[in-house]
Amino acid sequence: MDKYNKVIKELIKFRDERDWEQFHDSKNLALAISLEASELNELFLWKKGEEVENVKIDKIKEELADILSFTFLLAEKHKLDVFDIVLEKIKQNAEKYPVAKAKGTAKKYNEL
Amino acid sequence: MDKYNKVIKELIKFRDERDWEQFHDSKNLALAISLEASELNELFLWKKGEEVENVKIDKIKEELADILSFTFLLAEKHKLDVFDIVLEKIKQNAEKYPVAKAKGTAKKYNEL
Amino acid sequence: MDKYNKVIKELIKFRDERDWEQFHDSKNLALAISLEASELNELFLWKKGEEVENVKIDKIKEELADILSFTFLLAEKHKLDVFDIVLEKIKQNAEKYPVAKAKGTAKKYNEL
Amino acid sequence: MDKYNKVIKELIKFRDERDWEQFHDSKNLALAISLEASELNELFLWKKGEEVENVKIDKIKEELADILSFTFLLAEKHKLDVFDIVLEKIKQNAEKYPVAKAKGTAKKYNEL
Repeated sequence: MDKYNKVIKELIKFRDERDWEQFHDSKNLALAISLEASELNELFLWKKGEEVENVKIDKIKEELADILSFTFLLAEKHKLDVFDIVLEKIKQNAEKYPVAKAKGTAKKYNEL
Repeated sequence: MDKYNKVIKELIKFRDERDWEQFHDSKNLALAISLEASELNELFLWKKGEEVENVKIDKIKEELADILSFTFLLAEKHKLDVFDIVLEKIKQNAEKYPVAKAKGTAKKYNEL
Repeated sequence: MDKYNKVIKELIKFRDERDWEQFHDSKNLALAISLEASELNELFLWKKGEEVENVKIDKIKEELADILSFTFLLAEKHKLDVFDIVLEKIKQNAEKYPVAKAKGTAKKYNEL
Repeated sequence: MDKYNKVIKELIKFRDERDWEQFHDSKNLALAISLEASELNELFLWKKGEEVENVKIDKIKEELADILSFTFLLAEKHKLDVFDIVLEKIKQNAEKYPVAKAKGTAKKYNEL
């Protein structure tokens, strides 16, 4: 069993031992991802310059883990392969952001 | 090479071809995760009951891919193993949410 | 002096006594609004049916106050009248969402 | 009638003409605030230094108006006076962030 499958299995085990699947509709899982993403962002609020990269790694680790947990659970609920969907999106983005136009600029594709 | 490493390699290739690493400080990557999470949530806004699970899978797939892309990039920036940090967090959460107290309730650990 | 001006004056006094204007660039104020909005959303996470309207009013009050504080400060920074901009937006939205098409549906304007 | 009451009256008129109150439970209104706050944040994504304050005022105006609209509607739903709750919160924050400790630092109250 590869590592991703091990993680998914553990997440489901954790969820099912607590009888929490009843709360995990797609809307609430999406909201949970968003709230964890905000906790990650809170670590950087008001920070600038080198302070940004001085945030404690343990905090970042915890918030990233929370985001990933709910994201993996939502992907699993919809039988999506988390790696395939990212690879597919990279291809789409390559068309939206051709190197010749996008290089070195942070503009959105509709402003390129 | 396993699939996760393949994905990371492609994400970095995409980023570097466009010379975008200059924008990817931790604060902006965290913000990007949050904005993609909001786009996911927008799919469910105002929806209730069975409408929630009738959102088009293609939309969910795209937004999850965006969230995962920036999350993987931020994890990679900090040399974090995305699987290990989730497994570690599950262990921590098992202590915060013991089955005996948390079963069947959506209360936060500090209200159990 | 009307009530809104009193509130703005107090917000600025609070900020300046603490010498916090240095942190209040538009990007960080926007992020602060978002983080407070997430704290509001956290009150409703996993809740459904009548639970949604049973959230303690004191919690809602606090989070709304935080959202409003940062929103008022960002508006003030850009010399925007919070009432005029809402009235203007209502007019714009009336064109995007004509009653004949939008009545009783939660669809976005580009799907009407 | 003061300006705030005029705005609330217009917001409710707009909502009721479209029969949208059915969608406006507190959970969805809170989510709507959050999504609008993200659209505001998107204006600043990847921007740094003086770029931050060069974002077009018209965009900021629109997003602030959206945030305010849903925030006012949620406050109205709970019969909260938007000015009183901010004034009350400023008093609470003054205790959490005493000038002597908080001056010139962006630390959270529990780290002061």
